[in-house]
Amino acid sequence: METQDPFLTTAQPGQMLARGVCRHLRSHDYVCVEELVPTRGLRVDVMALGPKGEVWIVECKSSRADFTSDSKWQGYLEWCDRYFFAVDQDFPTELLPPETGLIIADSYGAEIIRFPDEDKLPAARRKVMHMKFARTSAQRLQAYRDPGVAGLFAD
Amino acid sequence: METQDPFLTTAQPGQMLARGVCRHLRSHDYVCVEELVPTRGLRVDVMALGPKGEVWIVECKSSRADFTSDSKWQGYLEWCDRYFFAVDQDFPTELLPPETGLIIADSYGAEIIRFPDEDKLPAARRKVMHMKFARTSAQRLQAYRDPGVAGLFAD
Repeated sequence: METQDPFLTTAQPGQMLARGVCRHLRSHDYVCVEELVPTRGLRVDVMALGPKGEVWIVECKSSRADFTSDSKWQGYLEWCDRYFFAVDQDFPTELLPPETGLIIADSYGAEIIRFPDEDKLPAARRKVMHMKFARTSAQRLQAYRDPGVAGLFAD
Repeated sequence: METQDPFLTTAQPGQMLARGVCRHLRSHDYVCVEELVPTRGLRVDVMALGPKGEVWIVECKSSRADFTSDSKWQGYLEWCDRYFFAVDQDFPTELLPPETGLIIADSYGAEIIRFPDEDKLPAARRKVMHMKFARTSAQRLQAYRDPGVAGLFAD
């Protein structure tokens, strides 16, 4: 018998993929933050930070329409060393640009199918991404540990 | 009538001070992670990260004995730009070294009473601290968001 997983009753399809992606990337020693904003107007589904400061971005596409309606993804390339799409196993992967990475995911895990070439971030931008990652994750962690802080500061 | 705060029934005195410190430092635009390990054998009560990458360490001392029994605090100085002690309002602050920063705190907030001089981290060590901060906070955040990940990876 499966135990109930409250996440699955409320999450959007893209968030389910993101959860599996984040779980899997831990096995590569990458830690993740979801819905990170590198700069105004951009919001990446998953930013993963590697043990040597590597920056990966993973966009989670739950359907063909979700991908074809996305006019922003190329704007993410300049914010990471490697860029991946994560999709479920029924997604028509031939739609995806072959130069991007490919991850097949579900709510529980994922697998990296295709590794993209590295396009190294300039040092200054890497620093920006590290700081965004650190500050976003710490602020959210504090909101979980100390719900009382939420009323004191608006993000 | 006060609403019950479950944290206060389980937290150690030092953790209560840390919570107030972390709340207060947000008003200085610093984000915090508690119980961070810069290197094997050292565990700082609070690491705070500033908007320009500044690194502060705050040690929380709940009593005279808690301070006098601490033989490690000088070892933290080389891991931050500024070092503070946080104590409650009844603590005999004359015990504390005058070159260190001083914060008076309780569970709900804090105030910086004395600002220590800055002793800037070398760039390489700053990078280490930023990465520790980012990875520690993201791993803990993931454990809150996705309790299922806990069984997959031991930290």
